[in-house]
Amino acid sequence: MQKSWVLTLKCVDGPGIVHAVSGALVAAGGNIEESQQFASLDTGSFFMRIEVTAVAQPETFEARFKECLMPVVNRYSMQWSLTESGHKLRTLLLASKATHCVNDLLYRQRNEQLPIDVPLVLSNHTVASDLAAFYGVPFEHIPVVDQESKQRFEDRILEVVEEHDIELVVLARYMQILSPALCEKLAGRAINIHHSFLPGFKGANPYRQAHARGVKLIGATAHFVTTDLDEGPIIEQDVVRVDHASSPEKLQQIGQDREAQTLRRAVGWFAENRVLLDGNRTVIFQ
Amino acid sequence: MQKSWVLTLKCVDGPGIVHAVSGALVAAGGNIEESQQFASLDTGSFFMRIEVTAVAQPETFEARFKECLMPVVNRYSMQWSLTESGHKLRTLLLASKATHCVNDLLYRQRNEQLPIDVPLVLSNHTVASDLAAFYGVPFEHIPVVDQESKQRFEDRILEVVEEHDIELVVLARYMQILSPALCEKLAGRAINIHHSFLPGFKGANPYRQAHARGVKLIGATAHFVTTDLDEGPIIEQDVVRVDHASSPEKLQQIGQDREAQTLRRAVGWFAENRVLLDGNRTVIFQ
Amino acid sequence: MQKSWVLTLKCVDGPGIVHAVSGALVAAGGNIEESQQFASLDTGSFFMRIEVTAVAQPETFEARFKECLMPVVNRYSMQWSLTESGHKLRTLLLASKATHCVNDLLYRQRNEQLPIDVPLVLSNHTVASDLAAFYGVPFEHIPVVDQESKQRFEDRILEVVEEHDIELVVLARYMQILSPALCEKLAGRAINIHHSFLPGFKGANPYRQAHARGVKLIGATAHFVTTDLDEGPIIEQDVVRVDHASSPEKLQQIGQDREAQTLRRAVGWFAENRVLLDGNRTVIFQ
Amino acid sequence: MQKSWVLTLKCVDGPGIVHAVSGALVAAGGNIEESQQFASLDTGSFFMRIEVTAVAQPETFEARFKECLMPVVNRYSMQWSLTESGHKLRTLLLASKATHCVNDLLYRQRNEQLPIDVPLVLSNHTVASDLAAFYGVPFEHIPVVDQESKQRFEDRILEVVEEHDIELVVLARYMQILSPALCEKLAGRAINIHHSFLPGFKGANPYRQAHARGVKLIGATAHFVTTDLDEGPIIEQDVVRVDHASSPEKLQQIGQDREAQTLRRAVGWFAENRVLLDGNRTVIFQ
Repeated sequence: MQKSWVLTLKCVDGPGIVHAVSGALVAAGGNIEESQQFASLDTGSFFMRIEVTAVAQPETFEARFKECLMPVVNRYSMQWSLTESGHKLRTLLLASKATHCVNDLLYRQRNEQLPIDVPLVLSNHTVASDLAAFYGVPFEHIPVVDQESKQRFEDRILEVVEEHDIELVVLARYMQILSPALCEKLAGRAINIHHSFLPGFKGANPYRQAHARGVKLIGATAHFVTTDLDEGPIIEQDVVRVDHASSPEKLQQIGQDREAQTLRRAVGWFAENRVLLDGNRTVIFQ
Repeated sequence: MQKSWVLTLKCVDGPGIVHAVSGALVAAGGNIEESQQFASLDTGSFFMRIEVTAVAQPETFEARFKECLMPVVNRYSMQWSLTESGHKLRTLLLASKATHCVNDLLYRQRNEQLPIDVPLVLSNHTVASDLAAFYGVPFEHIPVVDQESKQRFEDRILEVVEEHDIELVVLARYMQILSPALCEKLAGRAINIHHSFLPGFKGANPYRQAHARGVKLIGATAHFVTTDLDEGPIIEQDVVRVDHASSPEKLQQIGQDREAQTLRRAVGWFAENRVLLDGNRTVIFQ
Repeated sequence: MQKSWVLTLKCVDGPGIVHAVSGALVAAGGNIEESQQFASLDTGSFFMRIEVTAVAQPETFEARFKECLMPVVNRYSMQWSLTESGHKLRTLLLASKATHCVNDLLYRQRNEQLPIDVPLVLSNHTVASDLAAFYGVPFEHIPVVDQESKQRFEDRILEVVEEHDIELVVLARYMQILSPALCEKLAGRAINIHHSFLPGFKGANPYRQAHARGVKLIGATAHFVTTDLDEGPIIEQDVVRVDHASSPEKLQQIGQDREAQTLRRAVGWFAENRVLLDGNRTVIFQ
Repeated sequence: MQKSWVLTLKCVDGPGIVHAVSGALVAAGGNIEESQQFASLDTGSFFMRIEVTAVAQPETFEARFKECLMPVVNRYSMQWSLTESGHKLRTLLLASKATHCVNDLLYRQRNEQLPIDVPLVLSNHTVASDLAAFYGVPFEHIPVVDQESKQRFEDRILEVVEEHDIELVVLARYMQILSPALCEKLAGRAINIHHSFLPGFKGANPYRQAHARGVKLIGATAHFVTTDLDEGPIIEQDVVRVDHASSPEKLQQIGQDREAQTLRRAVGWFAENRVLLDGNRTVIFQ
């Protein structure tokens, strides 16, 4: 299997960017395998993701490419990242009682269907403990009952992020609101999942409300965590058809399946550097 | 082509209903071609839709079946209807400026993809006039600018309903709120369509809001008209995938396509007696 | 949770069947929760599946219902089955080298997403051994290298079927053709899965052929095993969209995912008595 | 609305192509709005589609860009095209008796949902005559009953192609096989549609065969016309779910709907220069 790398970048839009980047690639002896670009009319930003291989000497390509790229990066004040393809994203999972999302992510990790490496499941309940053991992933339980224990949980998150060089924190049905301070520290690298309906339902037990209204579709939304609860940039959404015969309990079961799938897709795209932030929106390069 | 009939009924659930109905059918010399039932745990109602043919003498079957059915209907206090299959539903279309829904419904009528018969398009704007002419359907324009003209429009609706024996009124992007009095008069036989998002967006220009939030799905909801604006029993919903590259204008165009499709399905099911009311929910027999 | 039962039946179509069955149910003190019927114009057969509960005394209901049903069964020469809902189908898995289908079925069994009980994985290769151990399911390896060892494998299948009272044999990518004798013994209770394309491709390495032709959809078909290789009654089919960028290897991976999903659905429907045979076709009551 | 142009190109893959093209664009004072590339491992070809706007002086941009591009085109021996966005593709429709595809294409043309301009419907039957009149498109009938009349029909196709500067010939259920000579003359600019099944069915009345086998999916394939009947490069495929209750006639009706949709998508992509040929495969830039 030939080595390849993914370059993503973001800068103020303007003529000549693609030309400059491709010039750096040519100079480094690389070749474009796949390329996507997007210019946002909303923010005036330009986004690019290219997958590249080395024409020769792959072992030194990454260093060569960075060297050639640096002047371009500086000229356009680019935010950028260069990652070898197949890199396993170091991912921390946060869990509470519902285990469907944790289960799906660990299952996909084990079957190599998701390029993630989960060093720890951190939970405010013990329910997911067995599951983590089953998949051979360390599990840690910190109950959250008051402000102090909540702070302890959040401190532990930051410790683990540091310790394990965590690149993504996934709230896999972790049912606690993160503090604004933590949201800011994890900005752009924490993903949450929640159910979604058309129309939306406020308040407790949305599945019961959705049933009462007789909705025909129920869905899920995966988004970045921000201080605005459930209002962060959307990464992925999906729905599934239901009918009049579904009880609220059945709706919830169907909805949870969809949550697991939607979260899995969002995590997979993030791991492959396909998710870029454009203000309060995301650019997804599929 | 063999003649067939559709019987729909609703009553309080209890043992023996199916047995009684099938007994009436056997007595009338009929045969079940298709049958669907549903018992609602929410309201305790029982719903049934059967499609039947006559074993012999089809020309007198409808009368025979009604006679045999009447004691059953009375015993269980059933709401019921018996319609010959293929009946074209007399449908009044209400329109404003956006013509995508009117267009789709008239196109399907013309191509016999929808069993409807539209005797009139009634509109508070003149935009759809050409379109109606193109499809050979009468068009009437009543401007709505104040309470008085609004009342005139609504009076005309009721007149047309009476005059043409209208079975369904479709608000095909008719952008006026019907008065509570009219909503009540048309209860269970007026369908509206509107855009839907996950999450929902309140206020003006929802497509612009959806764009700003970077939603990945936009949709449409077809529902019965009630006095609660946009809160009537849902008949059908559908969504379509969009991405970061879609402008608000493009989102609107995509959304309108989905509105037309969703409304068309709702109207088609209603015309085939597949939509039954269960409190604020619908039972859809597909 | 209230107990419920599923009755399925098949007989020559004719008036009065539903009436007779519902009469037996009323006499036994039962209530219909869900009911589906189908009359096949191809074979003249009538099919029915009803889910029923007991109005009172659920513990003796099954016996009462059978007693009341027996005269009806005899009068119409019905094939029938009555099963308590939630019954776990005793299922034997046959495997070869590819493990995606075995993995998915065992995963769903463990998560109680499929009502199956797998007492053994029988394989002509050892690849799936670890996987079976991981899910705590016994695994047995019988190499198939010649006619004699093939016979030994097939004998063992029949032994296991007998011993464990097996209700369904699943060829989970078991890459051997069953002998006509075995096919006949397992008729109607053995399911196979294979890839499917539009158009079909004959011969070796169909994914390579599909790639060469640039197909846009690849799929899978789950069907009953018959002596006609890959020509048995179809239970479920599904496809997934691919594009020009997919290599033959990627196509295969995508196709295998779809195979696992398609097989899982077929097995689940079979386990819930939703699959009935109508000559060389299936009636699926969803 | 800002003017934009679409450049598509194809050449032997190698380093520096993107850099050279983007250099020409920068020199011409243009900006990339959207860009897609693909390198085919099968044929070693490189494909690119970019949508560009002019930074200034749009009225002379096309000429400037062509001038700057020419040395690049020559250096890499590129096949290329540059078209202003929104160009309406001059399209000739060929029809026989079934009108569903002609109807859909003319309807989409009229509603500006397809950027095509159809100057003529040419048919070997008169059935589509009314329909063409309804949409205001000239219709011409040439019966095909023997070799001579077939030749006359084909001669007329080439005449019309010449006369109206036709860019695409669509066989909208035109049920005649084109001669090898004509296939060659129209290579890469004639699209056909036909039904597709999993598995495929040979011989007459495939819908009846599909019914007999109880297939669960029926579909359609749009492909380029080549001398190999129904074996040309695939542009688009789609399927739709059917069930045991569908008669062969109903299957056909459902299949025809899908044919119309699939053909419409293929034509739309072709019109927007999103379809490029890669040997016997297509590259579709969506």
